[in-house]
Amino acid sequence: MQIVQEQICFGGRQIRYQHDSKVLNCSMQFSVFLPPQAKEGPVPALYWLSGLTCTDENFSSKAGAQRVAAELGLALIIPDTSPRGEGVADDEQGAYDLGLGAGFYVNATQAPWHQHYQMYDYVLHELPNLVEAQLPLTDKRAISGHSMGGHGALVLALRNPERFVSISAFAPISNPSDCPWGHKALGAYLGSDRQMWAHYDASLLLMSKGCSLPILVDQGAADNFLTEQLKPHALEQAAQQAQAQLTLRMQPGYDHSYYFIASFIEDHLRFHAAHLR
Amino acid sequence: MQIVQEQICFGGRQIRYQHDSKVLNCSMQFSVFLPPQAKEGPVPALYWLSGLTCTDENFSSKAGAQRVAAELGLALIIPDTSPRGEGVADDEQGAYDLGLGAGFYVNATQAPWHQHYQMYDYVLHELPNLVEAQLPLTDKRAISGHSMGGHGALVLALRNPERFVSISAFAPISNPSDCPWGHKALGAYLGSDRQMWAHYDASLLLMSKGCSLPILVDQGAADNFLTEQLKPHALEQAAQQAQAQLTLRMQPGYDHSYYFIASFIEDHLRFHAAHLR
Repeated sequence: MQIVQEQICFGGRQIRYQHDSKVLNCSMQFSVFLPPQAKEGPVPALYWLSGLTCTDENFSSKAGAQRVAAELGLALIIPDTSPRGEGVADDEQGAYDLGLGAGFYVNATQAPWHQHYQMYDYVLHELPNLVEAQLPLTDKRAISGHSMGGHGALVLALRNPERFVSISAFAPISNPSDCPWGHKALGAYLGSDRQMWAHYDASLLLMSKGCSLPILVDQGAADNFLTEQLKPHALEQAAQQAQAQLTLRMQPGYDHSYYFIASFIEDHLRFHAAHLR
Repeated sequence: MQIVQEQICFGGRQIRYQHDSKVLNCSMQFSVFLPPQAKEGPVPALYWLSGLTCTDENFSSKAGAQRVAAELGLALIIPDTSPRGEGVADDEQGAYDLGLGAGFYVNATQAPWHQHYQMYDYVLHELPNLVEAQLPLTDKRAISGHSMGGHGALVLALRNPERFVSISAFAPISNPSDCPWGHKALGAYLGSDRQMWAHYDASLLLMSKGCSLPILVDQGAADNFLTEQLKPHALEQAAQQAQAQLTLRMQPGYDHSYYFIASFIEDHLRFHAAHLR
């Protein structure tokens, strides 16, 4: 785990690391924000999973999360969105929604993807094990993400509630079994058996397993992807059936961009901090 | 003046415009943030001038300024850093510090630059006239900027104190007559006569003209460009001689990046808002 870049930000450290991932079978970069409180002792962490086409840099530079994370004493752990590098399979047409930048936080079972695309295990185990061993972090974790990363955050925490204290998402792909992005990615990575897809569908997981963790979801009402791809109301219906603690906030006028995330990230950080205490 | 892109952000409007600039003799884009208060009536504006290689998008997406601007009822007016488009001269080697993205906020007098590179007049007159005629803005203005844009903010306001109420800068090029970036750009745009350069050198202007406006400057102490290019102490010495109200804050550990700007932009917005009232 080597430092690639480091900058002071709001009195804390914004650091980009490189490491060799065994799970992904390639070299990976990720970013971390360590708040000033980490100089005094270990701090809890919020994992942030980014959306299609992103790397760890989008959230780091555009969300404005460090200000409140520095106030609250929260670390931010920001992985990349797919395996990277030569030899890692990509979509043959270079599509933005499959392959590089589009790992969907699943463990792929299908060729050629299965050799590297194991983002579920990477984010759930390898990355936390690495940073908790080498950085001043407690083992208290919360998780959030945007769009494809909101899907990832929900799926990871719904399947492993003992690993996290709270879940949030911005404009998550809430029901990937029932939208074009999900059909394409889950079909490619997992094959055509839809029973396999259900393990990576937040609405189906919530309906079948329920959830004891609090969930906060913000969704822009003017988001171009709302009705075709994101479908937050499927998640809402599942939460009602499962009697889960979901707060879904429709935000009038907001779209799918980082201007939307920046506007509400403070609420999410305070929500997670209250549960991480 | 046409809207190219518009997003809701912190309850206000983040808008990118395109227009035909007579002064620059080309089509230009710029960004504006209108705070929620602009729905009720005209608001004052902070002009932000960006640094080398930037467009209007860097500050818009990375500084996190909209949150406090929305609270304070401040509009943000964010021009590009040079003329743009086919037919606009650029450095023949494609250097980052001359030509496109590097207009230095001067009125060029030398060929081939003088046909388009009139950023001083554009930011001082054409852009304010345009936005004050077409948007809910008062004629109260403050000005700030980063690096090359910090130089631009200081020069524009020192030469035209009646146009602004307050000046601030992040890591400004404080004494361009005496640094490599300045030698190269001022030499190319203005020719070899150093008396011409003095009209665009904040330290020389402050020494010769003084300044009645309050000035706030933040400078990262770990900025790679500090000693060779930025030279804030030249500005400090000039302020002492001229008995000007300069607050220069050296910020330990901070570098030249937007992580530095994001960390202190709130202080600058509150400083300007106090003078714009």
